[in-house]
Amino acid sequence: MIMALPAALEELVDQFAKLPGIGRKTAQRLAMYLLRGSREDAVVLAKAVVGVKDRIKLCSECGNMTEEDPCEICRSPKRERGVICVVEESGDILLLESTGEYNGLYHVLGGVLSPLDGVGPEDLRMKELEERVKKGVREVIVATNPSTEGDTTALYIAKILKPLGVKVSRIARGVPVGSDLEHVDQVTLTRALEGRGEM
Amino acid sequence: MIMALPAALEELVDQFAKLPGIGRKTAQRLAMYLLRGSREDAVVLAKAVVGVKDRIKLCSECGNMTEEDPCEICRSPKRERGVICVVEESGDILLLESTGEYNGLYHVLGGVLSPLDGVGPEDLRMKELEERVKKGVREVIVATNPSTEGDTTALYIAKILKPLGVKVSRIARGVPVGSDLEHVDQVTLTRALEGRGEM
Repeated sequence: MIMALPAALEELVDQFAKLPGIGRKTAQRLAMYLLRGSREDAVVLAKAVVGVKDRIKLCSECGNMTEEDPCEICRSPKRERGVICVVEESGDILLLESTGEYNGLYHVLGGVLSPLDGVGPEDLRMKELEERVKKGVREVIVATNPSTEGDTTALYIAKILKPLGVKVSRIARGVPVGSDLEHVDQVTLTRALEGRGEM
Repeated sequence: MIMALPAALEELVDQFAKLPGIGRKTAQRLAMYLLRGSREDAVVLAKAVVGVKDRIKLCSECGNMTEEDPCEICRSPKRERGVICVVEESGDILLLESTGEYNGLYHVLGGVLSPLDGVGPEDLRMKELEERVKKGVREVIVATNPSTEGDTTALYIAKILKPLGVKVSRIARGVPVGSDLEHVDQVTLTRALEGRGEM
């Protein structure tokens, strides 16, 4: 006779195993850990799980995730309102903010154009971007990833925004700081040459 | 200005990062995954987390985790009630059951004796084991791990139970099936020689 795990434990293992990068063994280890821990700890985790869905929404201005609408950046009187940096996901804003070099606003697309996956302009926050630009924006900096989809999306944005008389730029692609030319691929090297700056 | 994650997201990341083997990066990935998913999925996970604490208890007979007390094995009329196999944790029962070779009852200690970690007999379910043996048991099979603590615990069990007139045995330590003598350590080989069986 082969005994099974108690149903409640089996259910938790199933749920954990659904998370990305968590296999069944890891899921079992996590479930056993919670089973051994206090009920309070389990309740705190459960509340946090539902909390992200209940408390976090998208900023109606820029699409960034936030607990207050509009978000911290859109509300700030210190940010320059004439420049918008377009990113794929909310997480990208954190990366750009960590440089401390940018003081404009953002616009989160919520993805990239990807015809193969059936993602068209209407699935992204493109219309919203156009509306914001029409209200008076000086420059749009496209910071999509340096991938095929990122390139396509950047070109599409330039095509729809340039007729509105706004400057559209894209963050530079080139050799990463601290790297060695020997280990940089051809396409990156080509982009680095094309984007060379006068010294 | 360096922007932080929304508080609700930060709280979930903190909670995930508390789990064993989950670092901050993985915790962020899991939190973002839940944020992107549906509210229903989050609620199901949250319920499963609290469910293991609310629905699973220890069997009052053997200490195995169960949703019904006594547990499936202790309730079964098909199990031989004169033999008790002593294990460290509930999970060990699953391993032994998977062999399909054992048909007696179990007793979960809830750990091993470990003076260095301050774990004495009173921290384990030793008293309960003694009581069960007194009620009439033919043999106690000790299946603690083949570690220093497992050895100490097995010796302690033999010492307290033998005066009660019960047979106390321990599962064999020896060369694992399918292994190569060349790759087996000295201590294991010594145990294998000591525990040799007539052919």
